[in-house]
Amino acid sequence: MPDKIFNHRSIRKYKSDPVDEGLLQTILSAGTRASTTGNMQVYSMVVTRDEQLREKLWECHFKQDMVLQAPVHITFCADFNRFNKWCEQRKAVPGYDNYLSFFTAAIDALLVSQNVCLAAEEKGLGICYLGTATYNAAKIIDILSLPRGVVPVAAIALGYPDEEPGLTDRLPLEGVVHYERYSDYEPADIDRIYAEKEASDLTRELLEINRKETLAQIFTDNRYRKQDNVHFSKEFLMVIREQGFMNNE
Amino acid sequence: MPDKIFNHRSIRKYKSDPVDEGLLQTILSAGTRASTTGNMQVYSMVVTRDEQLREKLWECHFKQDMVLQAPVHITFCADFNRFNKWCEQRKAVPGYDNYLSFFTAAIDALLVSQNVCLAAEEKGLGICYLGTATYNAAKIIDILSLPRGVVPVAAIALGYPDEEPGLTDRLPLEGVVHYERYSDYEPADIDRIYAEKEASDLTRELLEINRKETLAQIFTDNRYRKQDNVHFSKEFLMVIREQGFMNNE
Repeated sequence: MPDKIFNHRSIRKYKSDPVDEGLLQTILSAGTRASTTGNMQVYSMVVTRDEQLREKLWECHFKQDMVLQAPVHITFCADFNRFNKWCEQRKAVPGYDNYLSFFTAAIDALLVSQNVCLAAEEKGLGICYLGTATYNAAKIIDILSLPRGVVPVAAIALGYPDEEPGLTDRLPLEGVVHYERYSDYEPADIDRIYAEKEASDLTRELLEINRKETLAQIFTDNRYRKQDNVHFSKEFLMVIREQGFMNNE
Repeated sequence: MPDKIFNHRSIRKYKSDPVDEGLLQTILSAGTRASTTGNMQVYSMVVTRDEQLREKLWECHFKQDMVLQAPVHITFCADFNRFNKWCEQRKAVPGYDNYLSFFTAAIDALLVSQNVCLAAEEKGLGICYLGTATYNAAKIIDILSLPRGVVPVAAIALGYPDEEPGLTDRLPLEGVVHYERYSDYEPADIDRIYAEKEASDLTRELLEINRKETLAQIFTDNRYRKQDNVHFSKEFLMVIREQGFMNNE
């Protein structure tokens, strides 16, 4: 397993080969073995294979081709709907229409998603997370008919890889780990932590293509811009509210 | 690896044996192989072994004994502090002081945490998630000196198991998976999905101890009560704001 964990690559090109139903069930079952708050399992996985639906989801995920290519698309949702219905059928009054409950359910869903990804990779499949699940959550809710109490928090493309990308660079471990307490970064620490990334061929290439002076500017000016973040912040908070998770009084 | 995934147990009793430093590094490295939005790695892991600090953390985690027992405590944080500092040192203006950025960083941190847990279990260690990291986030921020831009979203106890608990029950797979779109639950579906859990010896025992009519009531009246959820919702939203993630205009 560590081998597999250490060899994760996000796959952006997929073969059209379908994923066997039994194999899919095994992978989804692996998801359910993740830790879950109080064993409530306040999440759902929506498995979409239908091409027309995937085409609609593709639009929500900013038309990233892998959504169309990969035969399986899984949307991981924070889900208190099932639990609430159970409570109501069992003479219990659920108090889960608040932000903490949403976040608890989101944690549940995300731990499940990572188990699913690792189990899939173990079986020779490839995955790619679509960070965009939260950006257009309202549209995804509409396409997948998610009821009140359900919010999509992550999505993946799943299928057989049609590429063999190299391992992606990571910051040195010391850059992301703190011992005992958090030791805040001095300017020299930042220089050291980002040195290798900044000196890489990939960075040189990106700077040329994007005509930017620094790699950081590609993030702030092109890839993850303030105006987009602000826009999608409002949208996502509205979705959390509309799905019934902002009754905090 | 699927074996390991399928055999996960939350460990609540630990031996005092320390965790070898090299082994710990391997496990933390496995964390960094998780998918991360735009390869930004907007998370941090704070590894706490000091007994006095762990005693303070133990109080934040509602005095769950495993925090004292397990030799290693890891707090997983959404962290834009490092990335923001990098941007500022590289003539780039970060726009990550909003809710979407917080949630993106939280996703990053949670995928890392699940990798760390699976790598630890593969090496014979045991883990237990402390769902309480979000409940008392403000206190944890204080104890661990987390700066603006950093919010704890999960914590685990880590060490060698001193118990061999059985596998925890889960709902049948059909209860948490939907195909194509979400199919909302009819009353008969809820009855079927929860039947096995409700008929178990554990449930019978819990009903007796808690003197309740239904298992759902143990959740709503004792374990996850509305008044607590509302209280911690307000607290956690305040933390997100105070750590600089609610500038959504």
